[in-house]
Amino acid sequence: MGKKGDKKNEKNGKKYEDFNQWYNEIVEEAGLCDKRYPVKGMNIWTPYGWKLMQNIDRETRRLVNNTGHQEVKFPLLVPQKEFEKEADHIAGFEDEVYWVTRAGRNELDIPLLLRPTSETAMYPVFDLWVRSHADLPLKIYQMVNVFRYETKQTKAFMRMREFHFFEAHTCHATEEGAETQIEEDLEIMKELSKKICMPYLALVRTDWDKFPGAEYTVGADTLMPTGRTLQMAGIHQYKTNFSEAYDITFEDEDGNHKHVHQTTYGMAERLVGAIAAIHGDDKGLVFPPEVAPIQVRIIPIIYGDEEKVLTYCENIKEKLEQNDIDAEIDDSDERPGSKFYDAEMKGIPVRLDIGSDEIEEKTATLVRRDTGDKRTVEKENILEEVRITFEDMQKAMFERAQKELEDNIEDIDELSEIDEEKIYRGGWCEEESCGKEIEDITGRDILGTPYEDEKFEGECINCGDKTRTLVYISKTH
Amino acid sequence: MGKKGDKKNEKNGKKYEDFNQWYNEIVEEAGLCDKRYPVKGMNIWTPYGWKLMQNIDRETRRLVNNTGHQEVKFPLLVPQKEFEKEADHIAGFEDEVYWVTRAGRNELDIPLLLRPTSETAMYPVFDLWVRSHADLPLKIYQMVNVFRYETKQTKAFMRMREFHFFEAHTCHATEEGAETQIEEDLEIMKELSKKICMPYLALVRTDWDKFPGAEYTVGADTLMPTGRTLQMAGIHQYKTNFSEAYDITFEDEDGNHKHVHQTTYGMAERLVGAIAAIHGDDKGLVFPPEVAPIQVRIIPIIYGDEEKVLTYCENIKEKLEQNDIDAEIDDSDERPGSKFYDAEMKGIPVRLDIGSDEIEEKTATLVRRDTGDKRTVEKENILEEVRITFEDMQKAMFERAQKELEDNIEDIDELSEIDEEKIYRGGWCEEESCGKEIEDITGRDILGTPYEDEKFEGECINCGDKTRTLVYISKTH
Repeated sequence: MGKKGDKKNEKNGKKYEDFNQWYNEIVEEAGLCDKRYPVKGMNIWTPYGWKLMQNIDRETRRLVNNTGHQEVKFPLLVPQKEFEKEADHIAGFEDEVYWVTRAGRNELDIPLLLRPTSETAMYPVFDLWVRSHADLPLKIYQMVNVFRYETKQTKAFMRMREFHFFEAHTCHATEEGAETQIEEDLEIMKELSKKICMPYLALVRTDWDKFPGAEYTVGADTLMPTGRTLQMAGIHQYKTNFSEAYDITFEDEDGNHKHVHQTTYGMAERLVGAIAAIHGDDKGLVFPPEVAPIQVRIIPIIYGDEEKVLTYCENIKEKLEQNDIDAEIDDSDERPGSKFYDAEMKGIPVRLDIGSDEIEEKTATLVRRDTGDKRTVEKENILEEVRITFEDMQKAMFERAQKELEDNIEDIDELSEIDEEKIYRGGWCEEESCGKEIEDITGRDILGTPYEDEKFEGECINCGDKTRTLVYISKTH
Repeated sequence: MGKKGDKKNEKNGKKYEDFNQWYNEIVEEAGLCDKRYPVKGMNIWTPYGWKLMQNIDRETRRLVNNTGHQEVKFPLLVPQKEFEKEADHIAGFEDEVYWVTRAGRNELDIPLLLRPTSETAMYPVFDLWVRSHADLPLKIYQMVNVFRYETKQTKAFMRMREFHFFEAHTCHATEEGAETQIEEDLEIMKELSKKICMPYLALVRTDWDKFPGAEYTVGADTLMPTGRTLQMAGIHQYKTNFSEAYDITFEDEDGNHKHVHQTTYGMAERLVGAIAAIHGDDKGLVFPPEVAPIQVRIIPIIYGDEEKVLTYCENIKEKLEQNDIDAEIDDSDERPGSKFYDAEMKGIPVRLDIGSDEIEEKTATLVRRDTGDKRTVEKENILEEVRITFEDMQKAMFERAQKELEDNIEDIDELSEIDEEKIYRGGWCEEESCGKEIEDITGRDILGTPYEDEKFEGECINCGDKTRTLVYISKTH
């Protein structure tokens, strides 16, 4: 798709020197979105970006379907009175919701809000779906557009007023059932993180930072190139907080009516932003092969017999496509240099250059996007070679990001050691007042305590009290 | 998913005797939707129904991707001033749009409307995407939720206030380019109609019934069991009506700036309703195999060795799934009769009954949903047998619906012949006043004139003037 203002021949700003500029430019230049829609905080998903999101959704679907979740789709609009049933939830969202007050020429009797998340849309009918213990667990999910009236600066994929959202909602007979679900969710997150090459920390949020209405929240935080963290997903234990407000009950084996225990698992289009930010480099984006919108681009380098070169390329493309690899040929009139530039900028994992030498020797020159490594591969082995490269890239990209995350975690004993943009880890006495003091003094957030116990014995970095609780601290996006 | 109020053992009302009751009950009983959401005209897509819609979307995607369309996603909310640019379009939709006027605690400066369709969301940026003739044709589509404040009685999938919508939008350098697009769209419609076994008439709407803002509209009308028609899709020639309003121009080869010619192609979740209505019978739904949410259900009939029967069933299931057939085993505790009832009610195309005889003889009893035919098939041929049955069903279901459509078209010479609930075909003088008189007198709509010329010479059924124009007339859903 053509776009006015393409800057084909300008270098991107350096990713680490000015991340914001680099990021803001590359997401549009590579065609992930168009930010010129005339409503603030609402962008257009252009084909390349939407394909990436669909590929991430495909992997998410596969994982949640395999764990017995079923996909549904609830209405977008929620009546005011349903929204107002769970006090903490309202308090958390009331400043952020959009209200529909008119339809046609009529004022609506009851204002309807645009879902910021779907608890208040779903839970009024959950009691109709759950009758007895035999109906439990109930495990559903949807992938929908949600709306939050952000007052902070918006940013493509990271903080938008309309965004694409995955949300799983479950009901269980017991708290243990819900706890098991949270472990399953973290397992799903772990599998997905391999697909998108995105390491993260699973951290239990502080009480003052948990999801509105939740008993506790586990955040999955990844490290951005700025040294700040970004929440990729939130997994929430609700206990019976919502089921009491919405009266969602079941009959247990002894005939007693009890409130269900609930959990949710949410992820948003942020994953797209995080992939762009974490794997990109000064040449452009770098996509993990397993979710890349285009996996292979074939570049015909045409000097002599054009038809012969194109036939050779077509041949390779067909072979790859028959094996479910998304491949395309760049048969534009651009010069090879521009084609290389474009494939790099768009983050296509593998490039196959085809010139007269390659045709004569029945080979292709395979260029790997993350390392830039080139090698000659036999045409008859092309499928195998591409697959091996994909596997290597998936592994290498994850490990590189993992190392960057680990290298940016610093253990500290005292608050005064906090002076950089990175993640700090130290003891905390668990007192809310002390925790908030840590946040005030450092200008950073306590991300939370590790979901999986990290053995610790030491002192609170602020008050010095003895503690076995470790917290992670950073600035956040 | 359990649901209060299931009526497992009640017979459905007869489809032809009381279509509305039959339809309203079966869509919920089969699990296509839940109508108990607390906002009028907005239903919940339950897993089975949503899977059907996703399968239809998959087929649609395949067809439009193959014709060079690219998928995008535009924001839902449209600023008032963008909505107000094309006069006919506003007039057609202003009574039907929902308005967001508040966000958080603020009144919005500019009210935002929920898209009833996306012309007014897309066209403000189309001029940024189209610079020169080299950017044309532009062919994009999206699958999204849209909103229309219906004042008529709402009906699941047929007439909803929020509904799932496919919309393709194209820009062309010339009117001929746009005309070719409309032919391509009708070709896509034809291919899709084979997948969903849904014959239709392609009719050019009257001027007073075309899409608001269109130069002309081709409707695809199918016949419902009531004898009334239902519009399944609309294909619209806009000429430069919108491009002039939104100033979408391109530079042609001679350096002249011209307005683009545009078309759109829209289809909604109505397809789900139409499939349910047209193919269903008094036992429940009947789904075309190529879009069925579950294609095969295997019924273990367990008397003796339970594990042996289940292993045998698992074996068949794996074989089918490895070949991309959606199969499941009904391993519930219900009796075989209830399992048969459930599979029939849900419209699962093929049932495989497995009892001790089948295991001994290494066979399965294959039951075909549309005809109820049973036959014994060899286990080792099961994949082939299922595939053949699918093919036969696709063909038979289309042909049966096609015959029903044709049998319900009656040629008439005079208005007075119109007295039943069916489709009438006769001459029309093409005068708007005469056409509206036909509609008033008969209490029916003129659906339009055939898109593909049907040779005709005769008189107008109302005024008696000589004419070569044929129109189709019916009551509509």
